[in-house]
Amino acid sequence: MQVTVTPIELPLVHPFKIARSEERVARTAIVRVRSGERDGIGEATPIDRYGESVESVAHYFATHVPADDDPYRLETLLHAGIPAAARAGFDLALHDLIGKDLGKPLYALLGLDPAGTPVTSFTIGIADPETTLQKLAQVRDHPILKVKLGVGSASEQIETIAEIRRRYRGTVRIDANEGWNAESAIAILRELERYEIELCEQPIPAGAPEQLRAISESVAIPIVADEDALTAGDLPALRGCVAGVNVKLAKAGGIRGALAMIRTARAMGMRVMIGCMVETAIAATAAAQLSPLADWADIDGPFLVANDPFDGVRYAGGKLVLPDAPGLGIREAAPA
Amino acid sequence: MQVTVTPIELPLVHPFKIARSEERVARTAIVRVRSGERDGIGEATPIDRYGESVESVAHYFATHVPADDDPYRLETLLHAGIPAAARAGFDLALHDLIGKDLGKPLYALLGLDPAGTPVTSFTIGIADPETTLQKLAQVRDHPILKVKLGVGSASEQIETIAEIRRRYRGTVRIDANEGWNAESAIAILRELERYEIELCEQPIPAGAPEQLRAISESVAIPIVADEDALTAGDLPALRGCVAGVNVKLAKAGGIRGALAMIRTARAMGMRVMIGCMVETAIAATAAAQLSPLADWADIDGPFLVANDPFDGVRYAGGKLVLPDAPGLGIREAAPA
Repeated sequence: MQVTVTPIELPLVHPFKIARSEERVARTAIVRVRSGERDGIGEATPIDRYGESVESVAHYFATHVPADDDPYRLETLLHAGIPAAARAGFDLALHDLIGKDLGKPLYALLGLDPAGTPVTSFTIGIADPETTLQKLAQVRDHPILKVKLGVGSASEQIETIAEIRRRYRGTVRIDANEGWNAESAIAILRELERYEIELCEQPIPAGAPEQLRAISESVAIPIVADEDALTAGDLPALRGCVAGVNVKLAKAGGIRGALAMIRTARAMGMRVMIGCMVETAIAATAAAQLSPLADWADIDGPFLVANDPFDGVRYAGGKLVLPDAPGLGIREAAPA
Repeated sequence: MQVTVTPIELPLVHPFKIARSEERVARTAIVRVRSGERDGIGEATPIDRYGESVESVAHYFATHVPADDDPYRLETLLHAGIPAAARAGFDLALHDLIGKDLGKPLYALLGLDPAGTPVTSFTIGIADPETTLQKLAQVRDHPILKVKLGVGSASEQIETIAEIRRRYRGTVRIDANEGWNAESAIAILRELERYEIELCEQPIPAGAPEQLRAISESVAIPIVADEDALTAGDLPALRGCVAGVNVKLAKAGGIRGALAMIRTARAMGMRVMIGCMVETAIAATAAAQLSPLADWADIDGPFLVANDPFDGVRYAGGKLVLPDAPGLGIREAAPA
């Protein structure tokens, strides 16, 4: 079995700023697997914060041989020794290969109904008020927005939401990306309750589940863990502290890790968001294939990227539309 | 899609007595699914204690139409409204059908390595001392025994294990099937520590996780929940109270529910046993297909049944050997 990694650069439609970082070009790694006559394509989206990079993904597969030659032996191949984003890229490529080999789209192999996909949110990154309102004008027909907060004064952040709410009647989610502390989170979220906020992701830095519990008990807006919930193993500590978790392939190590996370979250009575990174249609389509298992989707990577070299999931009024082709169902617009 | 249910009676090699009940003939229900030209076979093993019977399984499918016509839509078809054993039978038949349709054994569709199966235990039910030692003589070459306890005085039960240990050097597990209380469990288990007991299943009646925690903290023998752990949703309450859980298809509602339970258990750091009921090779083989995900197997149903009408999983020195045929890999010795 051969694994090849191709780094690519993705120019963004707008500079993408969140509480922690800002980027104008996203870098991801296309992962291709070949086994005999069969092949599959995946994508690894390394997350700086967790010590992975496009280079570390390429280096991993340049220096490690797959643990089995049979591409169906996913449990063996996708062992925990592979760093999460690299494992996700490999996992996606193997699922694509298996789906093509069996002539079935991934959603069918996962037992899912493609009509059951949710409507995704569209993300508005952090910007000055004028730019934010310009972006809003471009996406106001979209039924769900996710607004990034966590930077600036409390009153500025509250005013951003107030301005958006004056112009937008759809569903609004917010994401502070760890930008607040427990005290400011409670203060800001209480002010925001009047603006019909569906949920708030990761208000405070990861690692303080009891503070998340205190926030959840103090405000009416449901709290969803993201940076606090990388894998299924992180969920037991969050029980009773949050209403839901954001499951991302790049954190969980691919489809298999994401499924484990979803099943564990459900067993704990947590709601599930399927999210994505800034990445191509490969990873976004893989996440979309899982999305019938989720309550909420945040799979807007392809909207953020200016020139996606891949085509897969489509959108119908924001609802995710899965391709019917075998495997992930990716078409390459041009070789990456 | 057509679902048909055929009740069958299974004469047992020995009367099978546990703390709660005794049976000489086991009754299970063969579940067959047909969808177009494709078919699959499964088995529902109703558990009295949870209000299911062979009749209730047959009645369910006589009065309910499957929720979808596409046999691949497992998440829709296997909804929580179907009672657990009936759902397990349907789930097994659907997995068998899908495997045959794709030309792949179930273990491959689950991403598992068939070489990774564990060695199963062989169960010795409750009997008088003479019968117990006769049974022991028959199975003493088997590397793992599971001895049923929970009936009789503490000293009789301890003496049973002592007598077995005088004659048997293999691994010994015990199962009290809820037959003790917290106090007697701690007293008996402390006495049994000297006999190298690998684990003890369900010492006390289900519903008292804090008592399980107290037992776990008081004795060196690892405690495994069975009657306390029917589905994935039961596991969060057991966190920190037990070392592991016994996952059974008939409790969890089939392969899909068992996978959710295994993933949830792993996320909580629990060890996993795959168990079975007194049932044919259909359900035993389905459990065996999942067993590479388990630490411990207790899949000895086919040893207990005198005239199994089906053939599937085999045993090599107790190690489970999976059939390579598509789906569950069941062959019918004679139409049931």
